[in-house]
Amino acid sequence: NISKSRGRLLRAPPRTCNTRETRPVGDVPASFPRVLEPRAREPPAARSTPERRAATRQRSLSRLFEMFPAASMTSRVALGGAAVRTGANAKAKAKARARPVRAAISEPPAAPASEQVPAARGAGRKKVVVLGSGWGAISFVKSLPASAPYDVVLVSPRNYFLYTPLLPGAATGAVEERSIVEPIRRPIAEKGWKYYEAACIDVDATAKKITCRAADPECFDDKGKDCEWHTFDVDYDYLVTAVGAVPNTFGVPGVEDNCMFFKEIVHASRFRREVNERFERATLPDVPEERMRELLTFVVIGAGPTGVELAAELYDMVYQDVAKMYPSRLIPFVSIKIIDLQEKILSAYDRRIAEYATDFFQRANIECLLNKQVGEVKPDAVVITDKITGEKSEVPFGLAVWCSGIKLNPLCEKIMDSLPEGTQENRRSLACDKNLRVNGSNGSIFAVGDCATIVRPRSMSKAMELYKSAAKCDDAGECEIDLDKDQIKAALTKGVEEFPHLEEVVNNIDDKFAVFAQANGRCTFDGFSKMLTEVDNGLRALPATAQVAKQEGEYLAAFFAQCDGDAARLIGDETKFEYNHKGSLAYIGKDAAVADIPGFTIVKGIAAGVIWKSFETISQVSVRNIFLVASDMIRTKLFGRDISRFVD
Amino acid sequence: NISKSRGRLLRAPPRTCNTRETRPVGDVPASFPRVLEPRAREPPAARSTPERRAATRQRSLSRLFEMFPAASMTSRVALGGAAVRTGANAKAKAKARARPVRAAISEPPAAPASEQVPAARGAGRKKVVVLGSGWGAISFVKSLPASAPYDVVLVSPRNYFLYTPLLPGAATGAVEERSIVEPIRRPIAEKGWKYYEAACIDVDATAKKITCRAADPECFDDKGKDCEWHTFDVDYDYLVTAVGAVPNTFGVPGVEDNCMFFKEIVHASRFRREVNERFERATLPDVPEERMRELLTFVVIGAGPTGVELAAELYDMVYQDVAKMYPSRLIPFVSIKIIDLQEKILSAYDRRIAEYATDFFQRANIECLLNKQVGEVKPDAVVITDKITGEKSEVPFGLAVWCSGIKLNPLCEKIMDSLPEGTQENRRSLACDKNLRVNGSNGSIFAVGDCATIVRPRSMSKAMELYKSAAKCDDAGECEIDLDKDQIKAALTKGVEEFPHLEEVVNNIDDKFAVFAQANGRCTFDGFSKMLTEVDNGLRALPATAQVAKQEGEYLAAFFAQCDGDAARLIGDETKFEYNHKGSLAYIGKDAAVADIPGFTIVKGIAAGVIWKSFETISQVSVRNIFLVASDMIRTKLFGRDISRFVD
Ligand SMILES: Cc1cc2nc3c(=O)[nH]c(=O)nc-3n(C[C@H](O)[C@H](O)[C@H](O)COP(=O)(O)OP(=O)(O)OC[C@H]3O[C@@H](n4cnc5c(N)ncnc54)[C@H](O)[C@@H]3O)c2cc1C
Ligand SMILES: Cc1cc2nc3c(=O)[nH]c(=O)nc-3n(C[C@H](O)[C@H](O)[C@H](O)COP(=O)(O)OP(=O)(O)OC[C@H]3O[C@@H](n4cnc5c(N)ncnc54)[C@H](O)[C@@H]3O)c2cc1C
Repeated sequence: NISKSRGRLLRAPPRTCNTRETRPVGDVPASFPRVLEPRAREPPAARSTPERRAATRQRSLSRLFEMFPAASMTSRVALGGAAVRTGANAKAKAKARARPVRAAISEPPAAPASEQVPAARGAGRKKVVVLGSGWGAISFVKSLPASAPYDVVLVSPRNYFLYTPLLPGAATGAVEERSIVEPIRRPIAEKGWKYYEAACIDVDATAKKITCRAADPECFDDKGKDCEWHTFDVDYDYLVTAVGAVPNTFGVPGVEDNCMFFKEIVHASRFRREVNERFERATLPDVPEERMRELLTFVVIGAGPTGVELAAELYDMVYQDVAKMYPSRLIPFVSIKIIDLQEKILSAYDRRIAEYATDFFQRANIECLLNKQVGEVKPDAVVITDKITGEKSEVPFGLAVWCSGIKLNPLCEKIMDSLPEGTQENRRSLACDKNLRVNGSNGSIFAVGDCATIVRPRSMSKAMELYKSAAKCDDAGECEIDLDKDQIKAALTKGVEEFPHLEEVVNNIDDKFAVFAQANGRCTFDGFSKMLTEVDNGLRALPATAQVAKQEGEYLAAFFAQCDGDAARLIGDETKFEYNHKGSLAYIGKDAAVADIPGFTIVKGIAAGVIWKSFETISQVSVRNIFLVASDMIRTKLFGRDISRFVD
Repeated sequence: NISKSRGRLLRAPPRTCNTRETRPVGDVPASFPRVLEPRAREPPAARSTPERRAATRQRSLSRLFEMFPAASMTSRVALGGAAVRTGANAKAKAKARARPVRAAISEPPAAPASEQVPAARGAGRKKVVVLGSGWGAISFVKSLPASAPYDVVLVSPRNYFLYTPLLPGAATGAVEERSIVEPIRRPIAEKGWKYYEAACIDVDATAKKITCRAADPECFDDKGKDCEWHTFDVDYDYLVTAVGAVPNTFGVPGVEDNCMFFKEIVHASRFRREVNERFERATLPDVPEERMRELLTFVVIGAGPTGVELAAELYDMVYQDVAKMYPSRLIPFVSIKIIDLQEKILSAYDRRIAEYATDFFQRANIECLLNKQVGEVKPDAVVITDKITGEKSEVPFGLAVWCSGIKLNPLCEKIMDSLPEGTQENRRSLACDKNLRVNGSNGSIFAVGDCATIVRPRSMSKAMELYKSAAKCDDAGECEIDLDKDQIKAALTKGVEEFPHLEEVVNNIDDKFAVFAQANGRCTFDGFSKMLTEVDNGLRALPATAQVAKQEGEYLAAFFAQCDGDAARLIGDETKFEYNHKGSLAYIGKDAAVADIPGFTIVKGIAAGVIWKSFETISQVSVRNIFLVASDMIRTKLFGRDISRFVD
C-alpha cells in the first residue's frame, strides 16, 4: 500500500519541519523558500480523476465576474494573474459543454507525437536511468524490487550515498566519515543492475537519451590520455532525476572564495582539517593575541539545522577535546559565531524550539548574530548589516562556513530546456505532478528529492466552481451572490478532496467566516476568494529534506513496481505521493537536542539528545552503517575525538 | 633497568628481521643497506669504560706487523685502512704509556669549548626538543616520565603518530585511516609539555638552536597573510632527532611523476581512491579491452614487507569485495604485479619464508617479476631489465606504487653540516654512539629510528691486541706467531665484552678454527684476522623498522630519566642501547602471514595470519587504537570494505 498516509499529502508540512536551508541569509530575494507560486501558464499538475472530469453544469456567471474584478483577487504572490486567466478561460470555454472546465484550463500543451508513449526498448523490460546517489536515488534503488521488469542504470559522479544528517558530526570527528557513507554499488550489485561513475551533463527528453561525462581527473587535466570513451550517451525509457540541489550564495560577493560550503563528505574532512589547523597555528610561539583571536573565531553563516548542528558539534569538540589537548591559554580566544537574517536560530522550527535553541546557544557562549544580513565575505571578515538598525559591521574570522541555502542543480536547467515550452516555468526546481512525473515529459521523466517540487493545485483555481456549487441558482442561471456560513462550509467541503488543505478551514469555519463575511452574516465571492487565497498561501512546497527525498524515492519505486512496466499505467492516475512528516530533530550541543514529533510533543534538552542519538543511529541505511555509527559514538564518549590532521 | 637485554646488543639482528626497504631495486649502489662501514677517520663511538682504559702492556710487535702487511687485512668494506691506522697509531703512541691505546686512537676531534658541557637553561630543568612524531619520537615521549627534570618541546609537521604496519590495510579499507593514527598532542598534553606543528628546517649545533617553519599553507601560497611568526627558533639543551627517512627513488627517472609513494597516511588514502577510480573507469560503457587491462594492472615496485603486504591487501580487496560489487566481466582484466631485483619476494627474511611467500603469491596469481631491475617509470609503463638475461621489457600499468627504499631525511644533512668536520662521514644516516648520541655533538644531540645508525666497533680494530693477549711472549717481547685452538678461543673470549658478536665464533670455535687454521692445527694472525673480518662483515646496522625505533625511543627516555638532567651523566657511559629482536611478521594475503619469531619458530599460513592480526591489534599504541583496529577488523569480516571514493 503505497499511499498509506493518504489525506496528509497536500497538507502543509508543519511549520517546524526540517526546512533545511531554504531561507536566505544575505542580501537576497526574501521569497527563497520553495513556496508554491504557480504562474498563469503553469497548469495544475495533478490530473483530475475521471470522475471529476465529468462535465460540470455551465451557467452564465457573467454577473459575478463583472462584480469582482480581477484586481481584487490579486494575492501577494501574483495569484491574480492566475485568477484572471482562470476566469477568462472559463468564459472563453463556457460553450464547450462536452469539455470539463478544469481540463480546458489545465491541459498541458500537446506533446510531440513521439513522446506520447514511452518507446519500449528490449523485450518488454523498460530501461530506467537514475541520476544521483543521494537520499532520493538510494531509496528508489533500494525499494525497487529486483524482480520488477526494469533494467536500472544509475549514473552519479559520487559512487557512494552520504547520510547527510551526520555530516556535522563527521566534520568534528564525533563520527567518522566512512561511517556515514555507503557504496552505491552495493545495492546496485545485489540487484544485478548497472552503475556508471559519471555526471549527467545533458538530457535530450525527445530522443530519451542522456549524455554523461566520467569524473575522470586525467581527462579534465589535459594529461594527454585518450579520453574518447569518457563522454557517452545512455538511452532511457524512464529517467529518474535525483540530482539534488547545489549551494546558493545568493550572489553575495566573496562567498565562493572565502567561505567553505557544507554539503559533501569532503566538506566535512576539510572543516575538520581546517579547524585543527587554526588551533595548531594559534599554538605556535609568538603569535600575537590579535591574530590568535582571529584564527580561533569560527563563523557559521546560516542558522538552519545544518548551521546550528555544525556550530553545536564544533562547540562540543572545542570544549570536550580541544580544551584537553591544546594549551589552556588558547581557550579564552576561541569564539564560535552564528549569523542569520532571522531573529532566532532554527527559525523554521516551532517558535518554542527556536527560542529554546537560541537561548541554549547564548548560554553556551555561541554568539548568535541575529537579524543580520550578510553583504560580503572578505578573506578574513564577514560584512554584516543589522536588519533593524541598518548598522554595518565586520566580523573577523579564522574560518567561515556557508550553510545558508540551496539552488537548482544546473543539470535541471538542461532538463527544463529540453521540455516543451511553458511546462517548466519555475526555475527553482523541476515542477512535477502528484506522481512525481516531471511536467512536460509526458511521463518519461520523474524527479525526487531536492530537485523536485510537486505542484499542488491551488483552490483559487476552482473558486468559482466551488462557490457556484453551493449557491442556489434559478433555472435561468441566475445565482445567489452572497452565501451564508453553511453554504460556504458546503462549498469548502466540496473542495476538500481535491484541495485537502481546505479541511483546515472547514474545521475552523466559525473563526474564518467571521473574518471574511460581511456584517450581514453573508459572504460574497470576493470574501470567499480572499479566504481561499489565504489558505492557498499557507500551502508550502515540501521541505528540502532527506525525509522527503527518501519517501519520494520509496513511493516512486513502489509506483514503478506496481505499474509493472506498463507504460499506460505509468502515465496513469492510480496513486499519488503522500508525505508523512515524521518529525524534526536538531542537535544543539552538550548532548542536548530539540525534537518536534508530530502528534507527540516537543522535546528539548538531554532527553531529545538521547532520541537524536538513537534516531541517527538506527536510521542509518545499512546494518554496516549502524554498526559503524554506534561504535563511533561509543568511541567518542570513551576516548574523545581524533584531532589528527591529514593534509594531502 | 634499561639494559635488560644486555649481551644481545651488538649481535647482528637475525637475517630474517624486518629490514624494511633497505634494498635497492633499481639501478643503484648495491650496498644500500645500512651496513656498518666505519672509515679510518671515524672513531669508534662507544667510549671505553674506565676499567678498559687502564694502560695495556705495550710490547714491541714490530715483527708481527712486518709479517702481516696492511694489504692482507683489507676487507671488502675497506676495513684495511682502519686496521693500518690502528696499527700505525698503536706504534706511534707506544711510548705514551700513561694514555690508554684505545683512547688515543678513538678520541673524537676536540670539540669547541662552548660545546663541552650543555649550557643549563632555566633553573635546573633541561630543555629537550624532540623532532618528529613517528615511532621513535612517540615512544620517547610516552616513556619519559612527566616527573623527569626536563621541559619537552616536540616539533613535527605531522600532528599525529602513524602506526605504519597497518598502512597497507588502511590503503584498502581493511582498517580505517583514523584507526591507525593517534594525535601527538595527547601524550604531550598529559605531561604538560609543548608541541609545535612545524618542520624543523635547520639546526645550529653550536648555538643549540633549531629553526622551524610552520606547516601553514597560507604562508607558502603567498596568500598575502602576514607570516612573520611562522618561522621561529627554538633553543634546546638536548635535541632528540627522530625525523625518520624519506623515500628513495635511487635516481630512477620518472618515479616521482608516475608512481605514488607509500609511507604516509595520505598515501593510503590516495591509493584507496586511485584503485577505486581505476575500477570505476574500467566499468564505463565502451572502454576498449586493452584499456581495461591497462587500467586494472596494479604494479608494486619493491617486494620488501611493505610492498608484499600492499599487494596482499590489494589482492584481498579485489577478490573479497571488488569482485562482489563490480561487474564480473572486469575480473579477468585485473592483475597485480610485484617487481623486485632479488630472486624472491621478502628476500631479507629467512629463506624458507621468502620461498613460501613467493610460492604463495604465484599461486594466488600475483605476478612476481623477480630479478628485474627498474630502469625507468613512464606515465603508463615500468621499464624493466632482467638481471640474468639482460632482456628489457615494459610493464604497462594503471597504477604503480614505489615501495622500494628510503634515504636520508634532508634535515639530517643540515645537522651533519652543523657538526665538526669528520664526525659524520656516512651520509646515509646520523652516526651515533651506543647511547644514541650523535657523533660530534658532544652529547647534546641524540638520534633514534630510521635517521640514526649506531656505529658499532669492529673487532678487527683490536685484532692485534686480542691476538697478542693470547700469545705467549718472552721477556724480550718476542711472541708466538701461530696460536692453537684454545689460544684463539681465549683471544676471542677476551673480546666478547667489547664485541659481543664474537660470542658466536666462540660457540662455534671447532668449525671456525677448521676453516681458518693451517694444516698444522695452528692459526696465524692472518687467519685470525680473516676470521674477525668475516664476523665483522656479518655485523649489520639495525634494520630501519618500527621495532628498532620504538626500542630506541624507550631506551633514550629511560636514559634521560635515569640521568636526571645531570649533564655529566648524560654524556657519560653508564648504559648502552641494546636491541631485542622480537620477530618479524608479514601479511601475505587470504588471511595468511609469515612470522619468524626468534627462539620460537617460523610460522606460515593462516596460523601466522592469526598471530599477525592479534599482534597488530594489541600492539596499537593506545587503548583507543586497539578498540578501533579491532572493530575495523570485525567490520571488514562482517561487511567487507568500503569502496566509496572521496575526491577533494
Ligand atoms: C549538512 C546537511 C545536513 C542535513 N541534515 C538533514 C537532516 O538531519 N534531516 C533531513 O531530513 N535532511 C537533512 N539534510 C537535507 C538532505 O540531505 C537533503 O534534503 C537530501 O540530501 C536531498 O536528497 P536528494 O536525493 O534530492 O539529493 P542529494 O542527497 O543531495 O543527492 C544528489 C545526488 O545527485 C548527484 N548528482 C549531482 N549532479 C549530478 C549530475 N549532473 N548527474 C548525476 N548525478 C548528479 C550527487 O552526486 C548526489 O549523489 C541535510 C543536508 C545537509 C547538507
Ligand atoms: C608502509 C610501511 C609499513 C611498515 N611496516 C612495518 C612493520 O610492520 N614493522 C616494522 O617494524 N616497521 C615497519 N615499517 C618501518 C617503520 O615504519 C619505520 O622504521 C619507522 O617509522 C621509523 O620510525 P622513525 O621514528 O624513525 O620515523 P617515522 O616513523 O618515519 O617518523 C618520522 C617523523 O618525523 C617527522 N619529520 C620529518 N621531517 C621533519 C622535520 N624536518 N622536522 C620535524 N619533524 C620531521 C615526520 O613527520 C614524522 O612524524 C613500515 C614502514 C612503512 C612505510
